[in-house]
Amino acid sequence: MQLLGVSGSLRAASFNTTLLRTAQDLLPDGVSLTIFRLHDLPLFNQDVEDEGDPPPVVAWKTAVREADGLLLACPEYNGGITGVMKNAVDWASRGKPAPLTGKTACLFGASPGMTGTVRAQDALRQSLRRAGARATPLGEVLVGQAHTKIEDSQLVDEPTRAYLARHLATYVAELRRVAV
Amino acid sequence: MQLLGVSGSLRAASFNTTLLRTAQDLLPDGVSLTIFRLHDLPLFNQDVEDEGDPPPVVAWKTAVREADGLLLACPEYNGGITGVMKNAVDWASRGKPAPLTGKTACLFGASPGMTGTVRAQDALRQSLRRAGARATPLGEVLVGQAHTKIEDSQLVDEPTRAYLARHLATYVAELRRVAV
Amino acid sequence: MQLLGVSGSLRAASFNTTLLRTAQDLLPDGVSLTIFRLHDLPLFNQDVEDEGDPPPVVAWKTAVREADGLLLACPEYNGGITGVMKNAVDWASRGKPAPLTGKTACLFGASPGMTGTVRAQDALRQSLRRAGARATPLGEVLVGQAHTKIEDSQLVDEPTRAYLARHLATYVAELRRVAV
Amino acid sequence: MQLLGVSGSLRAASFNTTLLRTAQDLLPDGVSLTIFRLHDLPLFNQDVEDEGDPPPVVAWKTAVREADGLLLACPEYNGGITGVMKNAVDWASRGKPAPLTGKTACLFGASPGMTGTVRAQDALRQSLRRAGARATPLGEVLVGQAHTKIEDSQLVDEPTRAYLARHLATYVAELRRVAV
Repeated sequence: MQLLGVSGSLRAASFNTTLLRTAQDLLPDGVSLTIFRLHDLPLFNQDVEDEGDPPPVVAWKTAVREADGLLLACPEYNGGITGVMKNAVDWASRGKPAPLTGKTACLFGASPGMTGTVRAQDALRQSLRRAGARATPLGEVLVGQAHTKIEDSQLVDEPTRAYLARHLATYVAELRRVAV
Repeated sequence: MQLLGVSGSLRAASFNTTLLRTAQDLLPDGVSLTIFRLHDLPLFNQDVEDEGDPPPVVAWKTAVREADGLLLACPEYNGGITGVMKNAVDWASRGKPAPLTGKTACLFGASPGMTGTVRAQDALRQSLRRAGARATPLGEVLVGQAHTKIEDSQLVDEPTRAYLARHLATYVAELRRVAV
Repeated sequence: MQLLGVSGSLRAASFNTTLLRTAQDLLPDGVSLTIFRLHDLPLFNQDVEDEGDPPPVVAWKTAVREADGLLLACPEYNGGITGVMKNAVDWASRGKPAPLTGKTACLFGASPGMTGTVRAQDALRQSLRRAGARATPLGEVLVGQAHTKIEDSQLVDEPTRAYLARHLATYVAELRRVAV
Repeated sequence: MQLLGVSGSLRAASFNTTLLRTAQDLLPDGVSLTIFRLHDLPLFNQDVEDEGDPPPVVAWKTAVREADGLLLACPEYNGGITGVMKNAVDWASRGKPAPLTGKTACLFGASPGMTGTVRAQDALRQSLRRAGARATPLGEVLVGQAHTKIEDSQLVDEPTRAYLARHLATYVAELRRVAV
């Protein structure tokens, strides 16, 4: 099973990118994760799309299409989804069929505050639904006060690592059930 | 009074950019509107910000700072704010003070469907609030079935033009009251 | 197949209750719909629950438990779910297992304005998800300008009737697929 | 200055009602708080309203009208506003002028989880806006893990008490500025 992971923050030391790298360590056996960097994606523009997707967009849409599942590390800026993450969703919601259609995604997020990006994850979940994808499992990974749980770009808080591992295992089990 | 307008869609013939151009015609006397194109804004990246805002970001943040008010033409993609618009908000929410802090914005939006971007406008309003800005007036401009109201990149539907004109007049009156 | 329907408005001539009655006519063969009136449900109060659910709550929770599916006619008050509808969800989300857990619901809504209760339906969908239920199908039934489509407590607009019928058929097909 | 407070939870030992009682102790001098119990409010029904508001509704609408400000202790059920709280808003949004119109409200909330009712408060803020009221100040009071901060129906956590006190002081200062 081959998963694709993206982080909605471009900062190298991002808490959310850190969660994604940690997920790489915590995934069940037999599951690999490729992290796709969103840095080169242009802003969505239908006029550009009409002339043909630029190479970074082709790469992004192909990666989504080929993935068995999506890990979405979802930061929150200004009480909502980041422009970076939404822009990636906007591109991947286009085409017939759109790369996102029929995909099953796993969300998690980290923030320095208490709420662990719950608002951004709600917005992302809603947009995925509208694009024909779904987010699962039911439980949420909201890593609040992330600065106390991350050191040297590693998630070091053991309860959070264990919780994230269980979340990922539930997600992978669902992917396997659906794939049968 | 000098307003700044942006559209959350980059498409040249965008319904929302059309609303913005129409607003230019409908504003009360003594109010001018400059349209800022978001095409050149990079994706928000704190690492880039740490090295100094790139020129398009400097231009964007300066334009927001210097404006007496903001007209935000707000499309909806996938049931939410566009990545383009949110990315612009994310940049303008940064700095001490952030360019958005204390600003009063006027929202409107157009969509081919029925709901006139109500979800995107709600998300934008929430993010503005978090960034220390506010949206006003209370009434909403939700231009549904925009393809029946726009011709040759002009808003031709008279009731919609009149409604938008009243909305803009209310907004400008509020700006003037606050400015005293 | 036995469905349970509720309206989030208690008004006898409610647009949303009208949609529900119309659904009764439009459902595929072999599917029956019982409409549950929420008028007698008390406000949720955990102290009351601790002493044992009052009879109207027992009736409501039993009806949800025994239903093969739920039709939720969802009005919008003040840009959100109605207190009436949310209160019903709050009661049905309680217990082990909660009556709502595992249920598949079909949403629709009508409003005099343009947006057809889209905000209320989003809020309802989110609360159902949190209660372990899911809303389907993907498409949305947003009946705007309902006063022009409803006469004598009947939905008379033919395109809307046809759209609602297709929505219900898709929903019932999904229920049947899941039930296998 | 006379404030009105309500809790969106009816449970006697509710965390949110506890916050409200604590607010009574923490308000600046010269400000008094009356707590209105929502237990007797019927479910909103326009047919009932058409025959004349029942006594508990009259009491509620009068209390809102006469208050200089509103303290809203906002629990979260199923990822949203409680039916109890929304029902109270729905009643108070009716009439010409509606009791809520022009009011300035102060929100806070407590939950056993991490997110401190942020979703419910967002929904409440949105509905207040639609009803012509506004929520202030900008900062949010999100009391997560409330069971560790409340003992014997008293908020005992000192940092949270201090934060709530500052929030209330900012709110009262704004009320006084507006009232001038």
